[in-house]
Amino acid sequence: MNPAVIVDGLQVSNFFQAGQMDYQTYDPNRELMQQWRNGGIDCVHLTCVIWEDARQALTSVSRWYRAARDNTDLVLIARTVDDIYEAKRTGRTAIMLGLQNASPFEDELGLVEVFYELGVRVGQLTYNIQNHVGGSCYEPNDSGLSRFGHFVIQEMNRVGMLIDLSHVGDRTSLEAIDASSVPVTVSHAMPRSAYEHVRNKPDEVLKALARRDGIFGLSIYPALMGDDVSLRGWCTIVARACEVMGAENVAIGSDMALCWTLQDAMTMSMGRWTFEPDYGAHTAEYPGWAPMPDWFEDSSDFPTLAAGLLDLGMTQKEVDGIMGENWMRLFKQTLVPEDATK
Amino acid sequence: MNPAVIVDGLQVSNFFQAGQMDYQTYDPNRELMQQWRNGGIDCVHLTCVIWEDARQALTSVSRWYRAARDNTDLVLIARTVDDIYEAKRTGRTAIMLGLQNASPFEDELGLVEVFYELGVRVGQLTYNIQNHVGGSCYEPNDSGLSRFGHFVIQEMNRVGMLIDLSHVGDRTSLEAIDASSVPVTVSHAMPRSAYEHVRNKPDEVLKALARRDGIFGLSIYPALMGDDVSLRGWCTIVARACEVMGAENVAIGSDMALCWTLQDAMTMSMGRWTFEPDYGAHTAEYPGWAPMPDWFEDSSDFPTLAAGLLDLGMTQKEVDGIMGENWMRLFKQTLVPEDATK
Repeated sequence: MNPAVIVDGLQVSNFFQAGQMDYQTYDPNRELMQQWRNGGIDCVHLTCVIWEDARQALTSVSRWYRAARDNTDLVLIARTVDDIYEAKRTGRTAIMLGLQNASPFEDELGLVEVFYELGVRVGQLTYNIQNHVGGSCYEPNDSGLSRFGHFVIQEMNRVGMLIDLSHVGDRTSLEAIDASSVPVTVSHAMPRSAYEHVRNKPDEVLKALARRDGIFGLSIYPALMGDDVSLRGWCTIVARACEVMGAENVAIGSDMALCWTLQDAMTMSMGRWTFEPDYGAHTAEYPGWAPMPDWFEDSSDFPTLAAGLLDLGMTQKEVDGIMGENWMRLFKQTLVPEDATK
Repeated sequence: MNPAVIVDGLQVSNFFQAGQMDYQTYDPNRELMQQWRNGGIDCVHLTCVIWEDARQALTSVSRWYRAARDNTDLVLIARTVDDIYEAKRTGRTAIMLGLQNASPFEDELGLVEVFYELGVRVGQLTYNIQNHVGGSCYEPNDSGLSRFGHFVIQEMNRVGMLIDLSHVGDRTSLEAIDASSVPVTVSHAMPRSAYEHVRNKPDEVLKALARRDGIFGLSIYPALMGDDVSLRGWCTIVARACEVMGAENVAIGSDMALCWTLQDAMTMSMGRWTFEPDYGAHTAEYPGWAPMPDWFEDSSDFPTLAAGLLDLGMTQKEVDGIMGENWMRLFKQTLVPEDATK
C-alpha cells in the first residue's frame, strides 16, 4: 500500500521575506519550504491573495511561478491531483495556490476562469469584510450569498475551483454549502464549541458541511485556539469534531503564519477598507502574531500531530485521513472541470 | 500524406459585434467563424489586445474562453501545435490568442508568463506608439529595443511565446530579430517595395527575418496594399517576397478586419494616447476601413489565394508552405518552453 499523502490545508506565512503588499520583493524563503520537507508535507494550500484585486493578484501569482521555478528541488505548483502524487513521488511539496478573498474576481464573473487558468485551485468567498459575493464572519449582519455570489459558486464549480468558507459568515456559509454542486471546505478554523470566536465555526455549519461531504481543516492558530492548549488538548478538539462531522470530513489547515511583522498583521486585517485600527482575529491588547505552541513551532512538527492523534486512540486509517487523505478525496471531487465529468 | 494545414497568420475582425473596448458585449459572431470553416482555415492567429493593459486584457481573454466554449462545433483555443492538428482532425478552426501590443505586460516582466499561462501564444512588441519595449513603425525616431525590451524577449523565448514585429519600427525589429534565441515573425504586413508605407517592411528587415528562419505573413489589407491590386498582382508580390526571403519563410497574415465601424477604426488608432485624430494606416481622406478586394472578401476566399499562387507557377509544395505549413514549422520552433527542450 502506498503511504498516505500528508496535506496542510492552509498556510499563510511570509514566503518572500517582505510585507504582504510588497510585490517586488523577491527572496523566496527556502527555510519555510525545507520545513515542509522536514515535516513530510506533500501538499500545502498556500495563500497568494488576501486583499489583492485582479491586477495585483497577477503579480502575486507570477511571483509564485518564479519561486517554484527557482526551487524545483523542493516544490512544484499543483494544478491537478496527479501533480500532488508527482510531488510525493519525487520527494517535493506540491503548492496549491489559493485566494483568501474573492477580491481578484472583482465584480466580473469571467475572472473566475482567468484565475483558474493561472493555476489557482482554491478560493475563499470573503476575507474579513463583506464583498460582492457575501458576508464575512466579522460582519454583524451577514447578508447571505449575493446574486453575484451564486454565479461565482456556479462558475467555481464549472471550472473546478474549491470553495473555501473559513472567514465567511455563518449564514453565507450555510447558503454556499447548499448552492455548491460539489463539496466545499472550511480550510482553516476551530470549532466554536472549543473556543468562542466569530472566526470559529458553530456545529450547525460543521454539520451542514459534513452532510455535503465537505472538509473541515482544524487550525493551530493561537488567537483562535485560546492560551495554553496542549497537543493532547488540540487532539481532543479534533476528536470532538470527528464525533460531530465524521472523521472522514475532518482534516488539518494549520493557518501557519510565520515570519510576519506586527505591521504586516495590521496590513492583513486593515487592507484598504478602514482608516481605524482593525485587529481581525487579534485584539488591541495583542495585535500581533501570538507565538506558536511548543508542540507545533513550524511545518517540521507535522508528524507530532499524527502521533498525538494516535496516542488519543484514533485508528491509523482515521489519522491518515485527517493528516491528508481526506483532503485528497475532496480534491479529487472538486478540482475537476464540470465538463470533464460529462 | 496528410493534407497541408491552412493558417491565417492574423485576423482582427470584430468577433463580438461591439466596439473594441466594449468588453461587456458578448455576442460571438458565428458567421465569421463559419467563414473560417468555409475557407478551410485550420488555425487563425487572433488579436485579443490592441491597447489593453493587464487588467483589461483579462476581460478580453476571458471573453474568448467563453466564445470558444459556446462554439465548440466550430472552434477551439490552441495552446499547442497538437491542438491545431486536433482542430484539423475534427473539422474545426484553432484560435491562437495574440496580443498586438506589449501593453498587457505593462512594465512588469512577470506578466509575460501570466499571459502565456492564460493561453496567449503571440505577442507583438509594439502597436502604433513607442512603449516600454521599443519603437513603433509610426515613430519618426525609433528608439530600438529598450532594456526592458531585451528582458521581455528573453522571457517570451523562455515561456514559448512567438514574437511579432508587424507594427514595430525597423530598427527595433532588426534588434529584436537578433535578440531572440528563436525565429520571430512579421505576421501581417506587405513588402515596402510593393507599397511605400512605414507599416510595410523594407527588404533589409525581410532578409534579416529570413536569415533567422522567421516568417513574413503577407497581408491583404487594402490601406497597405494600394488600390486595385488584382489577385494576380497580390500573388506577384508574394512571389517577389519568396525571391527575397526564400519561399519557406513566406506565409499569409491577412489582417482581415471585418465588421468594424469608422468609430472603431479611430479607437484602434487613437487608443488613449492622443487627443488629436490619428489615422494609423488610414488617412484623413479615407479614415475608415477600405473595402476588401472582390477576390478576397472574407475567410471563405482563402482557397482563391492558393489557386492564384499555383496559377502563377508555384509548386504545390511552395503553395502548401505559404498557405500554412511554414507557419506550422515556426509554431513548432517557438511555442515550446525553453526548458522543455533541455
